Amino acid sequence: MPVDQTGAGGPGTGQSGCRVERDLLGDVTIPPGALWGVHTKRALDNFPISGTTIGSFSELVQGLVTVKQAAARANLALGYLDRTRAGAIDGACQRILENPAYREQFVVDAMQGGAGTSTNMNANEVIANVALGILGEKPGAYDVLHPNDHVNMAQSTNDVYPTALRLGLLLAVDPLMAALDGLHGALDEKARAFDGILKVGRTQLRDAVPMTLGQEFGAFRTAVAMEIRSIREHAAAFEQVNLGGTAIGTGLNTDPRYAATVMAELRALTGRPMTGSPDLIEATSDVGAFVLFSGALKRLALKLSKMSSDLRLLSSGPRTGLGEIVLPAVQAGSSIMPGKVNPVIPEAVNQVAYLVAGHDLTITMCADGGQLQLNPFEPMIGYCLFTSIRTLRAAIETLTTRCIDGISADQARCRYLSDINIGIITALVPVLGYDTCSTLARRALSENRKVTDLIMEGGLLSPERLSALLRPDALTRPNVGRQTG
Amino acid sequence: MPVDQTGAGGPGTGQSGCRVERDLLGDVTIPPGALWGVHTKRALDNFPISGTTIGSFSELVQGLVTVKQAAARANLALGYLDRTRAGAIDGACQRILENPAYREQFVVDAMQGGAGTSTNMNANEVIANVALGILGEKPGAYDVLHPNDHVNMAQSTNDVYPTALRLGLLLAVDPLMAALDGLHGALDEKARAFDGILKVGRTQLRDAVPMTLGQEFGAFRTAVAMEIRSIREHAAAFEQVNLGGTAIGTGLNTDPRYAATVMAELRALTGRPMTGSPDLIEATSDVGAFVLFSGALKRLALKLSKMSSDLRLLSSGPRTGLGEIVLPAVQAGSSIMPGKVNPVIPEAVNQVAYLVAGHDLTITMCADGGQLQLNPFEPMIGYCLFTSIRTLRAAIETLTTRCIDGISADQARCRYLSDINIGIITALVPVLGYDTCSTLARRALSENRKVTDLIMEGGLLSPERLSALLRPDALTRPNVGRQTG
Amino acid sequence: MPVDQTGAGGPGTGQSGCRVERDLLGDVTIPPGALWGVHTKRALDNFPISGTTIGSFSELVQGLVTVKQAAARANLALGYLDRTRAGAIDGACQRILENPAYREQFVVDAMQGGAGTSTNMNANEVIANVALGILGEKPGAYDVLHPNDHVNMAQSTNDVYPTALRLGLLLAVDPLMAALDGLHGALDEKARAFDGILKVGRTQLRDAVPMTLGQEFGAFRTAVAMEIRSIREHAAAFEQVNLGGTAIGTGLNTDPRYAATVMAELRALTGRPMTGSPDLIEATSDVGAFVLFSGALKRLALKLSKMSSDLRLLSSGPRTGLGEIVLPAVQAGSSIMPGKVNPVIPEAVNQVAYLVAGHDLTITMCADGGQLQLNPFEPMIGYCLFTSIRTLRAAIETLTTRCIDGISADQARCRYLSDINIGIITALVPVLGYDTCSTLARRALSENRKVTDLIMEGGLLSPERLSALLRPDALTRPNVGRQTG
Amino acid sequence: MPVDQTGAGGPGTGQSGCRVERDLLGDVTIPPGALWGVHTKRALDNFPISGTTIGSFSELVQGLVTVKQAAARANLALGYLDRTRAGAIDGACQRILENPAYREQFVVDAMQGGAGTSTNMNANEVIANVALGILGEKPGAYDVLHPNDHVNMAQSTNDVYPTALRLGLLLAVDPLMAALDGLHGALDEKARAFDGILKVGRTQLRDAVPMTLGQEFGAFRTAVAMEIRSIREHAAAFEQVNLGGTAIGTGLNTDPRYAATVMAELRALTGRPMTGSPDLIEATSDVGAFVLFSGALKRLALKLSKMSSDLRLLSSGPRTGLGEIVLPAVQAGSSIMPGKVNPVIPEAVNQVAYLVAGHDLTITMCADGGQLQLNPFEPMIGYCLFTSIRTLRAAIETLTTRCIDGISADQARCRYLSDINIGIITALVPVLGYDTCSTLARRALSENRKVTDLIMEGGLLSPERLSALLRPDALTRPNVGRQTG
Repeated sequence: MPVDQTGAGGPGTGQSGCRVERDLLGDVTIPPGALWGVHTKRALDNFPISGTTIGSFSELVQGLVTVKQAAARANLALGYLDRTRAGAIDGACQRILENPAYREQFVVDAMQGGAGTSTNMNANEVIANVALGILGEKPGAYDVLHPNDHVNMAQSTNDVYPTALRLGLLLAVDPLMAALDGLHGALDEKARAFDGILKVGRTQLRDAVPMTLGQEFGAFRTAVAMEIRSIREHAAAFEQVNLGGTAIGTGLNTDPRYAATVMAELRALTGRPMTGSPDLIEATSDVGAFVLFSGALKRLALKLSKMSSDLRLLSSGPRTGLGEIVLPAVQAGSSIMPGKVNPVIPEAVNQVAYLVAGHDLTITMCADGGQLQLNPFEPMIGYCLFTSIRTLRAAIETLTTRCIDGISADQARCRYLSDINIGIITALVPVLGYDTCSTLARRALSENRKVTDLIMEGGLLSPERLSALLRPDALTRPNVGRQTG
Repeated sequence: MPVDQTGAGGPGTGQSGCRVERDLLGDVTIPPGALWGVHTKRALDNFPISGTTIGSFSELVQGLVTVKQAAARANLALGYLDRTRAGAIDGACQRILENPAYREQFVVDAMQGGAGTSTNMNANEVIANVALGILGEKPGAYDVLHPNDHVNMAQSTNDVYPTALRLGLLLAVDPLMAALDGLHGALDEKARAFDGILKVGRTQLRDAVPMTLGQEFGAFRTAVAMEIRSIREHAAAFEQVNLGGTAIGTGLNTDPRYAATVMAELRALTGRPMTGSPDLIEATSDVGAFVLFSGALKRLALKLSKMSSDLRLLSSGPRTGLGEIVLPAVQAGSSIMPGKVNPVIPEAVNQVAYLVAGHDLTITMCADGGQLQLNPFEPMIGYCLFTSIRTLRAAIETLTTRCIDGISADQARCRYLSDINIGIITALVPVLGYDTCSTLARRALSENRKVTDLIMEGGLLSPERLSALLRPDALTRPNVGRQTG
Repeated sequence: MPVDQTGAGGPGTGQSGCRVERDLLGDVTIPPGALWGVHTKRALDNFPISGTTIGSFSELVQGLVTVKQAAARANLALGYLDRTRAGAIDGACQRILENPAYREQFVVDAMQGGAGTSTNMNANEVIANVALGILGEKPGAYDVLHPNDHVNMAQSTNDVYPTALRLGLLLAVDPLMAALDGLHGALDEKARAFDGILKVGRTQLRDAVPMTLGQEFGAFRTAVAMEIRSIREHAAAFEQVNLGGTAIGTGLNTDPRYAATVMAELRALTGRPMTGSPDLIEATSDVGAFVLFSGALKRLALKLSKMSSDLRLLSSGPRTGLGEIVLPAVQAGSSIMPGKVNPVIPEAVNQVAYLVAGHDLTITMCADGGQLQLNPFEPMIGYCLFTSIRTLRAAIETLTTRCIDGISADQARCRYLSDINIGIITALVPVLGYDTCSTLARRALSENRKVTDLIMEGGLLSPERLSALLRPDALTRPNVGRQTG
Repeated sequence: MPVDQTGAGGPGTGQSGCRVERDLLGDVTIPPGALWGVHTKRALDNFPISGTTIGSFSELVQGLVTVKQAAARANLALGYLDRTRAGAIDGACQRILENPAYREQFVVDAMQGGAGTSTNMNANEVIANVALGILGEKPGAYDVLHPNDHVNMAQSTNDVYPTALRLGLLLAVDPLMAALDGLHGALDEKARAFDGILKVGRTQLRDAVPMTLGQEFGAFRTAVAMEIRSIREHAAAFEQVNLGGTAIGTGLNTDPRYAATVMAELRALTGRPMTGSPDLIEATSDVGAFVLFSGALKRLALKLSKMSSDLRLLSSGPRTGLGEIVLPAVQAGSSIMPGKVNPVIPEAVNQVAYLVAGHDLTITMCADGGQLQLNPFEPMIGYCLFTSIRTLRAAIETLTTRCIDGISADQARCRYLSDINIGIITALVPVLGYDTCSTLARRALSENRKVTDLIMEGGLLSPERLSALLRPDALTRPNVGRQTG
């Protein structure tokens, strides 16, 4: 569905459908088709930084527009905005929310100074012009409906932007959770499939005691389940917002009923339990929820990184590594070595994890830059969080479908390594004693023998007893029974 | 109370009270007075890294000893440890908990390889030797009571150390919370004291709209209150531990009843709601709770840093800065400039905050280093967390008592700056309109006049009306009333 | 100039101009117009991560293609590649270098696993198909000229990719240096223009001793000059490359003369003093030059951040801050506060600096992930470095042209603040003594007087003497003359 | 040699040898034996932060005292300080430099606010009191010789402290370089000893092409050699200092000849080519040299970490890992698993590396905190750098002597793995062609055969030819000869 640009080419427009707008710095020409205006144009000139527009973060756009819609409804309810203008703004917001094509009008760079003012003004201008279209007016007819006076009524960038950022993050978290659910399911399937496969557990890259491959993948699954909980909990902090505080949190130029009214509208529009911060002055400059959420994203990233590193280790080889599992081949691995296949998907996940950790530092430094009644660095915080969420989600999805789903176990290899593992002796300590076991362990290593062979050879245990003691189900859970009192 | 070192100089001791102990690498001489043994000695030789002993983290020692005590009680209850040995170990643990002098026996370097094995063995050895003393035996008489076989029974470093670390952190958080409570109280007092003082609110270091100094300090107070909640919540994650998992979480070589039994003992000893991790294999290598807690500490640090930076800004001057508040003079500020007094306490707090952020990165990299069934880098994670908590607590205490408590307001300065602030015009927008206000603002700036003077001069408002509109209580809260229905 | 895609639609192509290519995993359909092939297609499917293609980093593409061109020439010179194929490859490289439209064929995601294999294969395939076009063949006719056998001859991703990355960074640094030169010039101009303006020097946000505004901007200029030197020096490390090492640095499957030959071609093509690493095995996995260069970028970023923070401080106000300088107004600052203008450009620079610091951390973690003979995380290192350079350059340019160039001094404000500054007393210590000066300083503060007034009042110095002592040129440089021998 | 504390108990001392000193805040009691005074006491009260004194960084103390000595000599030479006082100060400095016991008088906390003022005053006071002792006076007799007026003459904390920090770091780097030289030698020895041992090269944890174990350790050696050069080069930046700039770099209250004179004295005292910064105003607030040096330390740390991770991987096993090398056993590895030996030394090195990376971040944030004419956070920068250098040195020494020196190769294992490595097929590509090799590689993997067996079986090459092609010296260097044109 193409964006409606009625009214281009009318009064106030120059050659070929351009129009002229004015701010305190003078006149600027707005190109035809643009629903944004003078303030957006200034920002385009001032911030040619990243090439990434705010429109590319669709959830941020949704958050912004939802705030504007809630404000329009509140201003109507309280009698500050007439029915015509309120209706036009409301309708414009609805159109933008429903038609992705409008995102192309959100053109300011995601990396910007000004604490989000340019983002807010971009939204105000686009909404005003879409609303003007609804009213049958041409873009730029701000005497009829004004980006500041009407769309931004009872608002300030300093309460709109932090609120929109939080709403946007709540929206962005949903698909991340879905991706994590998918990963959880894939790991669960593998944990079940690999349940009976006995293998060597390893600590500090040293052969330790036995476990099953199912337990190993079950641990990955548990880790993911914990992250799902953690991300959800930390995202919930975004349901508390500072809308209504205006410039510095005092609520200057708002009706005493406004804060509660707009919050009720926000709840209605989002279906989420949005609440206002109890101390709006504190909340205006507070970026702590972002810092903590970034920490939670970092933790998720580190868990994925650890899992990916483990997958790379466990699948190392094919001949001279651990080789207990086989990752699906998804592309040729080398332009020079025939037949080489590399763990490219887990490697991508590691790298995304490190990007997220880097973003956490960027956010940390932005957070430290808050001064007095505002933190002017929220745009970069937003950029980092949206990018972290997006790349994490993509990495999780590709990890799930292009790696985990296709992993197979090399059961023979697992069995062979289990068989030669000296660490299995640990399970015999309660029966043979620590000293005997130590001696056996050292002999096995120096003579290059299996400990079970040495035990049989020495007649220390009957084959049946030994076999019973080393049954997988005995080895992989609490197993010491009390003989007598 | 001096440490009891009965038995030094007996069998197994060499010249001047030394004794000889042995491990798989051979004999070592243990100096007189040492209650630690051969494994500790190896670690002393291997890790001369930081000069900071684990004993200097008293809470970690408490955590370790408490785990050992709980294990001894569980092993007694389940019938694996006889009453004599269990009693001696229990008593030894109690002595060590009660007498700070024993901490000097916890000598291994806090920065160590081996995933905490040296820390665990240091504890095992000291407890064994204290227990031997209780039994009337000499240090080193391990045939009577053995560090591994008895003190470490049913345990592995890999479940003991992570559990002890968590217990230690829970203990260390308590005084941090107390310090935060103190800071909260000090800020609350200032918020009340400064309640009536109107001042300029500032965003992006630019004059904005009015607020009170009480509101500004109230925001600091709110921020601290939020951190108190956040730290408490994140520390609670440490109440879930992996004790009972032994080497890799399978619980190998434990009685099936052991995990539940030792957890009950741990609850009894600590008075905290300790629980076992539902997936002990996952929990054995999982350092996510540390990562998230470090993130919470970092957030706290950033809040303190922001507050400190604000205090430095607000007190800048004395003549050519903002000068709205005066920090107490706590030391002379310059060796060359007479009378200069610097904001040295907030500056210290900023620096501690940056140390904590650095530690968060160290923890991040340690967390990423987990491999397969273990993360070998927990000792550095412990070092960083304990150091961060300790320095934060110290910084908070000195901030409270040597800075916040003594802050006074320069009311005349606040009033003067409020008076000349052009931003006050914002409050008149609902009455005079945005355009008129913009024009007035620009005239005031270019002609170097007060906006109120221009308004009076132009007869735009009566003195009474203007005065009413600019009353502090009107300026610093939602203030727009609906004239008509 | 549109990209030449001769041959699309011929043999090996399916419906509507598609063609089919094959690798060890099976057949894939390549869309019409694509000059890339099967390996690129696999990567497109595997890495839908960031949405940023390698083609968007034009310097990386140039680096890749230049390596391929050098290799083709070396292989021709050593007799391994016939004149026809070598010529076609050489010509294809030249076309790609000269026509920016070809960058659209470099489609794989910049965030990828596989240590850059996909990037290398994308280049091999595009070059092969362009070369085939030159030979009058259709895309995909690899029996005539093969991406691996001919374009990649005597190469491995593991020496091509790190070399191309370094070449690309050398290219990317040039415009960064130009931007820095521009900033240096702008600061130099301001330093000269503000030369005679006496102002208050401040340490720890406290009034200190006098300086000129020209000295302050001169210090910025000096800082930039140092960064120009530092960046240039650290970039020079990229002139040493591992080309010739092939898979792991042993040079397997190369002619002993190859390494020297290809390096000579590289020097000829780039005009830079490229050399081979003395230990190619070490060099294959070594990312140290990236780490150090990232550190240099971070230092540059921090200098820009400090300067930006200073500009924000010095221009704070307009009424209730320092207000010594005025930044040019580049956009309206507030949707709610009339007339507010914010320091949006410096704020953007701060944020970019923090992004660069975050990228430095990402690079740190990638660097730590090197294992044995390779570091698989170089693609993310490349992404971060190119992005850091690009955003820094953009930030520097906007800082120069939209902020520094338009800064003006508020001379009256500078003079006024200098006049009331108590710190000026420091300059009188050699004449009046430290004790007298301390007393005067304290009286001035408590009585709210100027120190010069107190001195005149007390007749401590004649007006002429005082005036001479406080001449700007005396106050702002070494000024103590020895009265007697 | 005990510290000389003559004069304790004289005039100005209270009960039991205490004395009373005074500053602008009032009187304080100085305990007996203390050679420091009132300013130090204030700092002790204000900064109970880390428990680490500046005296524990002996090189910092040396740096401080050397600056004071140089200044005293310069002030004597220029006629500002009389021969008696200058001589006493000079002698006091000499005593302190020569007698480590004096370090206990440098008691202020290394983490402090005030930009190093407390550190500078601690030095001024101790030197003054030692000098007073030389003059036969009692501590505190400052009317005879004053900490500020005489010891600190022509100085400010703001030029003394940054200069002393740089001198201290230059001193601290020397033993670090020695440790690195030791590591380099140990690696060189292993590279030679392992020269003939053919083994599998691995990229992305996948079997790749052959190399020798000597080449692998040779690469470690090369890496260390590069770090030695890098650290030395970056430390050299510390030879440029801002001494002579006094409070803000203008050199206020110094003789125009002072800066050059004191620099000459500094060169004479240190034997290093110390020079003054060309722009002292810039230099006063510039911490860029610390940032870059920290980056170089981080790079060193990352190289050590990568090497340590490789050592852990290569020695993984003993049975179910790579097992190509054996690390010396330095302590028992497990309290539960008999015979387990862990790579504890490399693990310690990894952790130290991550601490250094964390400190780099702390330094980054401190650097960002510079404001106007000073960076108040240099004390934390100093703390981090000294701690990083110290722990790195310790880690390197223990790595060298307790790990590298004792590493042995498992030649049989290396040979076995080489033998079964499929990647060896790469070396036959020039002879058999890529397609044949790919087919062979896939058959070898799926049929679990050796590629050499398949080749023999298929009669593709004669045993002699195959043997010649797979000779270690052919496999591990450029090896493709041109048959004919």
